[in-house]
Amino acid sequence: MLVVKVGGAAGVKDEAVCADLAALAQEGQPWLLVHGGSAETNEVATQLGHPPEFVTSASGYTSRKTDRRTLEIFEMVYCGKRNKGIVERLQALGVNAIGLSGIDGRLLEGPRKKALKVVDPKTGRKRVLRDTYTGKVERVNTGLIQLLTEAGYWPVVTPPAISDASEAINVDGDRAAAAIAGALGAETLVILSDVPGVLREFPDESSLVETLARHEIPMAQEKWAQGRMRIKLLGASEALEAGAKRVILGDSRGEQPIRAALAGKGTVIT
Amino acid sequence: MLVVKVGGAAGVKDEAVCADLAALAQEGQPWLLVHGGSAETNEVATQLGHPPEFVTSASGYTSRKTDRRTLEIFEMVYCGKRNKGIVERLQALGVNAIGLSGIDGRLLEGPRKKALKVVDPKTGRKRVLRDTYTGKVERVNTGLIQLLTEAGYWPVVTPPAISDASEAINVDGDRAAAAIAGALGAETLVILSDVPGVLREFPDESSLVETLARHEIPMAQEKWAQGRMRIKLLGASEALEAGAKRVILGDSRGEQPIRAALAGKGTVIT
Repeated sequence: MLVVKVGGAAGVKDEAVCADLAALAQEGQPWLLVHGGSAETNEVATQLGHPPEFVTSASGYTSRKTDRRTLEIFEMVYCGKRNKGIVERLQALGVNAIGLSGIDGRLLEGPRKKALKVVDPKTGRKRVLRDTYTGKVERVNTGLIQLLTEAGYWPVVTPPAISDASEAINVDGDRAAAAIAGALGAETLVILSDVPGVLREFPDESSLVETLARHEIPMAQEKWAQGRMRIKLLGASEALEAGAKRVILGDSRGEQPIRAALAGKGTVIT
Repeated sequence: MLVVKVGGAAGVKDEAVCADLAALAQEGQPWLLVHGGSAETNEVATQLGHPPEFVTSASGYTSRKTDRRTLEIFEMVYCGKRNKGIVERLQALGVNAIGLSGIDGRLLEGPRKKALKVVDPKTGRKRVLRDTYTGKVERVNTGLIQLLTEAGYWPVVTPPAISDASEAINVDGDRAAAAIAGALGAETLVILSDVPGVLREFPDESSLVETLARHEIPMAQEKWAQGRMRIKLLGASEALEAGAKRVILGDSRGEQPIRAALAGKGTVIT
């Protein structure tokens, strides 16, 4: 099984990702796609008069501040527009895709964070946020994935997940993909974003780190990774820990982004 | 199998519908829910600067004018906010619900109307609309429904459907529910809306038509039905024609709307 994560940043080309996935499906390579939708959620939230806010955790990870209204807008973009757009595109390419959020059939389940400790990155002041709908995937309904894939369907998966108390919760897409890849014991998890992989000297693209051993991840997070790459490395670590064989952090911007990553273009972590 | 359709009008209480469905599930009654989302789509479309427009066909049925932008907003509300909201609510009631649009796994398939003949209801002038994403359900992927229901999942289904050329198309929710009920040979199709059923003298609720034979449907459409009730009767006729045993047009506004309908409260059509 191949698990692919494609983000929701502005420059991501769904056309190229879907064309690649369709070709792989025709060759008999089973896959599961996880997608994001962050940039468009920001746009729609702003248009709807509820502009996005972001918070930074004590460990330095940035995430969307998700009140109930934000969660509903998130669902509109992730589960509505983007998920159905990708499923439609894959269907047009002959792939019998089926879109699922983590709520559906309790596909992605875990605890909701009742209190979120955040830090103001400028002042360093800490405070506690409550009433946010965020959490972490701890269980994956692999039975549902197997049921669908064995029957010839191709899953296209998106956050939110569902909490133990059955609330929709915003979870990080990279880490959700990692949890799925781990639970399925996937051969490969490909995480695509708008950089070539881990860069030693961000943003110098010629400074790509081509291979990493899993024990080097903390060092890479510390020394090299900037911004979202830190959480992608966390996801990579979690995926390998949970049972995935290999993680490739690849570039979403090329014509055959998944094939390129599978051919080793990007940061290959084992 | 019981198929339930709940609309998307402003007054519809998802709480009561979901509580009823959860109780039925516990009693071992298999069901499939189809929902709409029209009122909220109107709101969101207006907020996003793309206000809704409606057109009337030559045969007198009113429908949403659906360009590509409208379709995307439609997907945000129907497949995103409302579908996931209902699935979350059912999950909290212990029902392992799974949300699907008609695009997913080609659940609801049919032709796109390339040209839509519409009439200006005031002037009677006819014109032809092109570039609208609307169509009609002609095939239901009953295999996918059976796969999920036999594995213990409860389907929550929403438009859009998918065209033969794999475009997302807006289809009428009542008629989509009718197509599903027909394809499954459902024992009962319950269509809930904010009136008690067919009224002989709309809006006098004491003038409820309690039973109708299927051959009386054209007469009821002609003599009694107002507004959306005409298309619900068309759906009822199509469901019975396609193999459903019984259709009940019931009231969504009570505390146990589905149980009440199943007990014969509403217009029962056989």
